[in-house]
Amino acid sequence: MRKTGILFAAVAAAFLLSGGTARASDDLMERAKSLFKPIPKELKEVKGVRITPALIELGKALYFEPRLSRSGFISCNSCHNVGMGGADFQQTAVGHGWQKGPRNSPTVLNAVFNLAQFWDGRAPDLKEQAKGPIQASVEMNNTPAAAIKTLKSMPGYAKLFAKAYPGDADPMTFDNLAEAIEVFEATLLTPDSAFDKYLEGKGKALGAVEKSGLSKFISKGCAACHGGINMGGTGYYKFGVKERVAEGLMTGDKGRYKVTTSEDDEYTFKSPSLRNIALTPPYFHSGRVWSLEEAVSIMGSAQLGTMLDKDDVSDIVAFLHSTTGKQPKVEYPILPAPTDSTPEPKLD
Amino acid sequence: MRKTGILFAAVAAAFLLSGGTARASDDLMERAKSLFKPIPKELKEVKGVRITPALIELGKALYFEPRLSRSGFISCNSCHNVGMGGADFQQTAVGHGWQKGPRNSPTVLNAVFNLAQFWDGRAPDLKEQAKGPIQASVEMNNTPAAAIKTLKSMPGYAKLFAKAYPGDADPMTFDNLAEAIEVFEATLLTPDSAFDKYLEGKGKALGAVEKSGLSKFISKGCAACHGGINMGGTGYYKFGVKERVAEGLMTGDKGRYKVTTSEDDEYTFKSPSLRNIALTPPYFHSGRVWSLEEAVSIMGSAQLGTMLDKDDVSDIVAFLHSTTGKQPKVEYPILPAPTDSTPEPKLD
Repeated sequence: MRKTGILFAAVAAAFLLSGGTARASDDLMERAKSLFKPIPKELKEVKGVRITPALIELGKALYFEPRLSRSGFISCNSCHNVGMGGADFQQTAVGHGWQKGPRNSPTVLNAVFNLAQFWDGRAPDLKEQAKGPIQASVEMNNTPAAAIKTLKSMPGYAKLFAKAYPGDADPMTFDNLAEAIEVFEATLLTPDSAFDKYLEGKGKALGAVEKSGLSKFISKGCAACHGGINMGGTGYYKFGVKERVAEGLMTGDKGRYKVTTSEDDEYTFKSPSLRNIALTPPYFHSGRVWSLEEAVSIMGSAQLGTMLDKDDVSDIVAFLHSTTGKQPKVEYPILPAPTDSTPEPKLD
Repeated sequence: MRKTGILFAAVAAAFLLSGGTARASDDLMERAKSLFKPIPKELKEVKGVRITPALIELGKALYFEPRLSRSGFISCNSCHNVGMGGADFQQTAVGHGWQKGPRNSPTVLNAVFNLAQFWDGRAPDLKEQAKGPIQASVEMNNTPAAAIKTLKSMPGYAKLFAKAYPGDADPMTFDNLAEAIEVFEATLLTPDSAFDKYLEGKGKALGAVEKSGLSKFISKGCAACHGGINMGGTGYYKFGVKERVAEGLMTGDKGRYKVTTSEDDEYTFKSPSLRNIALTPPYFHSGRVWSLEEAVSIMGSAQLGTMLDKDDVSDIVAFLHSTTGKQPKVEYPILPAPTDSTPEPKLD
């Protein structure tokens, strides 16, 4: 009798425990589904513009086109390298004349899902974003007129623009150039990460440590700023909500304040997407932190007022690794041939 | 009778003329076949090394790997851009710290067919060539040890090397790195140009102007230095055999003399391949000439002692355009992810 009783109790306990675990597990998936969304395999349109093969082809050529820069040496892909998680593994961007830019290059991958572009959100979309670096003296240091003049010197570009904008009498404009780049960038998605498979209902897509990391990512509060489809890119937040951030990390950058000149926005930045984040050190707008563990730990204290312990950090980092999706397949574009009237690059 | 006689004479003349033209046309093709060879679609091996998918995959990653440079910003593809005829549209190469290199970047396309590499032939093959720019202070400014240390910090590279060198206990060497790049570069061929189709027997692959250009290219003497499969890359020749070259064009560069220190080699350079030449202005070792017409004209006077007239130049240029082949299809490599031990790039 006693033995049977013990056995019964043990079985019951085991049943309850496993049931409990399954329930906790289901709960985690449900909570995750309510906070995040998987990256889709492709988009059909971006801001009302239908994504066509001709627009992608033009946009891809422009994205890889160093002759859009004054020097003829720097393209979009120089700092947003499609083979390097969409970024450049630099503290801050390298630009014209070997200048060091003010901020770390954000990834282009999935960037279409951000509420706005740049660390300070000063461009409402990728189209406006694309116009920035081409003109920034510290980046490509060109002018719209010079860029278009260069493109117009190459019949191959006239063909690409005409095909991408069939109804347009004069399609070779800076605006269309930027839009085509936007369209190409909207194809740079990274679906099918382990985390996305989990979000699609495959419980086994994440291991125990990754699930623990996901659970902590939610319970500690990370998901508040890093939620949604892009796990970030959804709003602006003060860097150092709970604890002042070291000056070496902040580098005097007032973030969105420069855009709005509202005191509320001092030291606020757009929360970056954490998708594929393991591929793109260094971290933060200043690019001063090279280790993902350290970055997570800093976020704990600075944003959440929590000292994350070693296990918390390594679990969360394991979870973040699970967001690395299938990287985009990009066939290198054969760029249009120059002609005698193509302006010579200028290194000065 | 008289009329018949005239008619007969006219028919005979027409017959003879057309026969004569056909014969001249056949002759041209035969002469061309004796001087040039079409670019093959692919190679099975390079200098005894079998070209395998694993070697290509490794070599391609390395070719696009900016972290092989001290700055983490410059890859082989920066100056030998596979989308820009295998070159960079720069007078001379841009390198570490925005330095301007001493010579124009030669194309990587079909470079495997050259008798040696660099303008002065100082590297016997692409494998030795690949080791140069990685270490040159004016290019990637790195060291073999630092490059290998960087690669060893990324497990993705360990896998790629192990796959490419399956029998090798310690495959991550600078020598294997260079060999893999050589193998990838040996896939960068441009077959199927109009000229190659002509060489394969399709008489109509070239138009009348192109054929006239080909005929002049041979009869004026261009083919003497620009013959063979690569239309160049077959020997070393003094720049200015017949007529002294302007100092602005020569830029004091003694060419192969630096390699051999033989007076005979003063101002001699390897004849560059003229395949796809229309894609890769500017021209000559100094990159001082941006127009292909002008380059052809200079060659006429400097090398052949001939003042080519306007028609000669435009016919030859039309012919040179016909050597532009199918550009290589390259899927952008997804580069291995960095780790916390991957050395930070250094811009200084």
